[in-house]
Amino acid sequence: MKKLLLFIAIFFYHLMGFAQKVDFYQKERAQWLKIAEQTTPKLVETTKRPLSIVRLEKNEKKFQHWDTKPQTEAKNLFKDSFKKQAGMILDFGEHLTGFVTFSVEDFGRAADAPIRLKFTFGEVPAEVAEPFDPFKGGLSRAWLQDEIITISEVPKTITIPRRVAFRYVKIELLGSSVYSDFKISDLFVKATTSVKQSAVPLAKGTPEMIQKIDQIGLNTLKECMQTVYEDGPKRDRRLWIGDLYLESLANIYSFKNHELTKHCLYLLAGLSYEDGVAPSNVFERPKPHPQINPLFDYALIYNVALKEYLQATGDKKTALDLWKVAKKQIEIPKKYLGEDGMLDYQKAGKEWWVFFDWRNGLDKQAALQGVVIWAYKNTYELAKMLGKEQEVKELPALIQKMTEATHRTLYDTQKGVFVSGKDQQISYCSQAWMILSGVASQTEGKKALENVMAHTDAVKPGAPYLYHYVIEAMIQVGMKEEAKGLLMNYWGDMVNKGADTFWEVYDPQDDFLSPYNAYLINSYCHAWSCTPVYFIRKYPDIFQH
Amino acid sequence: MKKLLLFIAIFFYHLMGFAQKVDFYQKERAQWLKIAEQTTPKLVETTKRPLSIVRLEKNEKKFQHWDTKPQTEAKNLFKDSFKKQAGMILDFGEHLTGFVTFSVEDFGRAADAPIRLKFTFGEVPAEVAEPFDPFKGGLSRAWLQDEIITISEVPKTITIPRRVAFRYVKIELLGSSVYSDFKISDLFVKATTSVKQSAVPLAKGTPEMIQKIDQIGLNTLKECMQTVYEDGPKRDRRLWIGDLYLESLANIYSFKNHELTKHCLYLLAGLSYEDGVAPSNVFERPKPHPQINPLFDYALIYNVALKEYLQATGDKKTALDLWKVAKKQIEIPKKYLGEDGMLDYQKAGKEWWVFFDWRNGLDKQAALQGVVIWAYKNTYELAKMLGKEQEVKELPALIQKMTEATHRTLYDTQKGVFVSGKDQQISYCSQAWMILSGVASQTEGKKALENVMAHTDAVKPGAPYLYHYVIEAMIQVGMKEEAKGLLMNYWGDMVNKGADTFWEVYDPQDDFLSPYNAYLINSYCHAWSCTPVYFIRKYPDIFQH
Repeated sequence: MKKLLLFIAIFFYHLMGFAQKVDFYQKERAQWLKIAEQTTPKLVETTKRPLSIVRLEKNEKKFQHWDTKPQTEAKNLFKDSFKKQAGMILDFGEHLTGFVTFSVEDFGRAADAPIRLKFTFGEVPAEVAEPFDPFKGGLSRAWLQDEIITISEVPKTITIPRRVAFRYVKIELLGSSVYSDFKISDLFVKATTSVKQSAVPLAKGTPEMIQKIDQIGLNTLKECMQTVYEDGPKRDRRLWIGDLYLESLANIYSFKNHELTKHCLYLLAGLSYEDGVAPSNVFERPKPHPQINPLFDYALIYNVALKEYLQATGDKKTALDLWKVAKKQIEIPKKYLGEDGMLDYQKAGKEWWVFFDWRNGLDKQAALQGVVIWAYKNTYELAKMLGKEQEVKELPALIQKMTEATHRTLYDTQKGVFVSGKDQQISYCSQAWMILSGVASQTEGKKALENVMAHTDAVKPGAPYLYHYVIEAMIQVGMKEEAKGLLMNYWGDMVNKGADTFWEVYDPQDDFLSPYNAYLINSYCHAWSCTPVYFIRKYPDIFQH
Repeated sequence: MKKLLLFIAIFFYHLMGFAQKVDFYQKERAQWLKIAEQTTPKLVETTKRPLSIVRLEKNEKKFQHWDTKPQTEAKNLFKDSFKKQAGMILDFGEHLTGFVTFSVEDFGRAADAPIRLKFTFGEVPAEVAEPFDPFKGGLSRAWLQDEIITISEVPKTITIPRRVAFRYVKIELLGSSVYSDFKISDLFVKATTSVKQSAVPLAKGTPEMIQKIDQIGLNTLKECMQTVYEDGPKRDRRLWIGDLYLESLANIYSFKNHELTKHCLYLLAGLSYEDGVAPSNVFERPKPHPQINPLFDYALIYNVALKEYLQATGDKKTALDLWKVAKKQIEIPKKYLGEDGMLDYQKAGKEWWVFFDWRNGLDKQAALQGVVIWAYKNTYELAKMLGKEQEVKELPALIQKMTEATHRTLYDTQKGVFVSGKDQQISYCSQAWMILSGVASQTEGKKALENVMAHTDAVKPGAPYLYHYVIEAMIQVGMKEEAKGLLMNYWGDMVNKGADTFWEVYDPQDDFLSPYNAYLINSYCHAWSCTPVYFIRKYPDIFQH
């Protein structure tokens, strides 16, 4: 509720801003949206049918305490009476995203009454094992993937008018004629992705667990790569800058569908808020539009994503065309920057959503300093590649000033860690951003990470998104084995618990953690969890042996 | 369950018959179906929007103990936040049948999550007041008209993919974004009927209650007249011979859409069972097909419906073309006819479904004798109109023999009533059919009806279908005031309880009676209840003053 009020306050704050100003991208917007439209990827469609019928088994050792056991081949569904099978669970053997079509047929004797079927689609077994209602979660109940279909005439072929993301499908019979039987004579999904080419295989001898993590990471990325980089194909289903950044990094080292990245960068530019801020997230349908939900750190990350794109592709034309957006984002922090080189993080936190991680109580002062310095550095690199240094010539001095101020203010020499906020909070998040920004020297950074890992009260990462930055920081300070160990531990744990794709939220201590107070509504195929693909393939010396 | 087993036994009995024989209508079937297709009526479509938002009130004096009270104009729904109105009930002010379309729109801020709405359509208030589940009824739960719709994108216009029949619509909100609101900006039904012209007004001075009964009867008939004479637009939605007969009678005296009757007679002929029996009921979709469910009395009534059609239209061409069907139906009883002129009703009851009324325990021997004699007489009249007497020249003697045998066997001279079965059951049903068949003389019939009305243990009619035959019998024996009184009482009682259309089942003593063990699944707009239209308009001397 508090968060909701904050969102509403932020919304009106920015809305008032819009009302007073003209569109900062008045000249460019239409052209950007046109290019976004022209670069919309054509989806690759594959028809997939279920492999088997499974039954559920309670098992405290399995993820969320549910296991599935194969019962019979799925093709039996298509020939036998459905009445006798009602309630069964189909297993497609892999995570898929698309539209599901099914057919019902009678057995010679026409149905004399409509049929009522309930389809429940699950990414993980719990979703087809546990009731969705009563629903107490903080997000729309409608994200949960159950659809009730009335079939007025038999035979009939019906496409469920909603895209679903799933491995399992439960089908229940809510009503039918007592005088005639029927079968579900076919059921398939037209699975989609915009991935066109496979990733190259890993080096021979890569540890089996790394191979598994890589493969599941690739599956996760593939499923999230639709007409945009979606955050999750089951839930949210939109383009966030934070997810785009991680997905495009993983894509650079795997599927190399750079056109999709270009499409997303243009779409975000074309849908930027009128005050020039890059939108935290945008929707494609019913027509492209942003969510009015400005997010401080994500706006700055736009610049880093653009730089990475340019570096990977050499596509200067796009980078030059979108340079105006990058240049505008660096203005955001300036409003909050004090003479001393420190940001007024409390004011920023009131006027903006500041994210970094799903973790209640995380203090974000250090991370905010870090992300700004890091984004400024990346933006300056981008400027140099484009010959635009003159346009942002204030950045080097600004970076230096902020770096020094941050170090002076937030480094606790005695403890050997970076602290954050008035309560001097110690967290993984702060150490990671102090390292990535270069505030911490290599030695300080290593020591800070070692200290935070030894510090039982340190605030741990809440979601895979932050794990990415922590591992990147470890690599940056030379903690190669620790980076590999953390990746093997955290993602490997999901593998051991049966993940087909990596989850939005994962706490090794709590399978039922949910930022939405309803773990069934968590996304279990989530873009920001795919980054092992990037690490494993960018740093083969660390991970592929 | 017993009935189900009987159906299955009958099904296999007839199936075996089919397997051995060639198609009796091999030569004619294709042409009949072609004519049926060519005569499919074009539906008249009218767009209707709700009139008001109502609230429900418990009231033991109202039908099924529910009353509705107007709350506000329906147009408020279309402009205000739906979140604040969720659960409201729309009132269209009349019974309508068709496809419903609705639109959702945001209030400037795009929805960031799907919306889940539940629509419940009710012909009567109880359907939108009481939960459908858990459902214990004997018919498919899927007949109940609730549909859950997930809306992935806003704004959106959606047509619910199921035809519904209703006056009331309840809309519940099962899920939506907490961050954005929306409105239902439009909702309408494309209401259909094949009625093209209004019925002429009743004579001036017709009693108000008769006027009301006539109007509600017309509404009922109009709603059931779709591309066939349906039995009920909410439930069953198919063409039964029994309903066709009563509807076409009412149509002759009101809307005069004789083309629809012709279409139905051809459709039934074209879908007759291969052994030549007219099908008890047929479905139009997905392609025209009969339900394999032979019904003794309905097969014979086909002939009477054809005769009435010829009499009303003079369309000899159709009657001659379909004469073969009529001629075949008169064979059905012969198999069960003993030397003594009595039918082996127990054998017939084992091999056929014998209907006459929804009333457990009703003995059908007398009614079976009656309906056969009545149908034979009507068929002979039909033959005479077509110059085909020679082809059925056995009928007059057969009618005489059966009439005498029936009178001898079933008339209880002492009690002055007709009895039925080995337990000599006394029922309205038996008296009605003894009169209609002419087994009872006018004097005997009048006395029998008077006696049965005075006889508290007599088996009463269970549904409006049988009330029709009872009233027709009363008129035939000159009990004009009693006929008017019964019609005023029985249908007038439904009027007083707020009927918009007449109900499938109505027991003045029990609003919750249901042949399906679930009164919410009863049809509340049912063809066979429309016959006051026929009586009031055919016999103005009795009813219109």
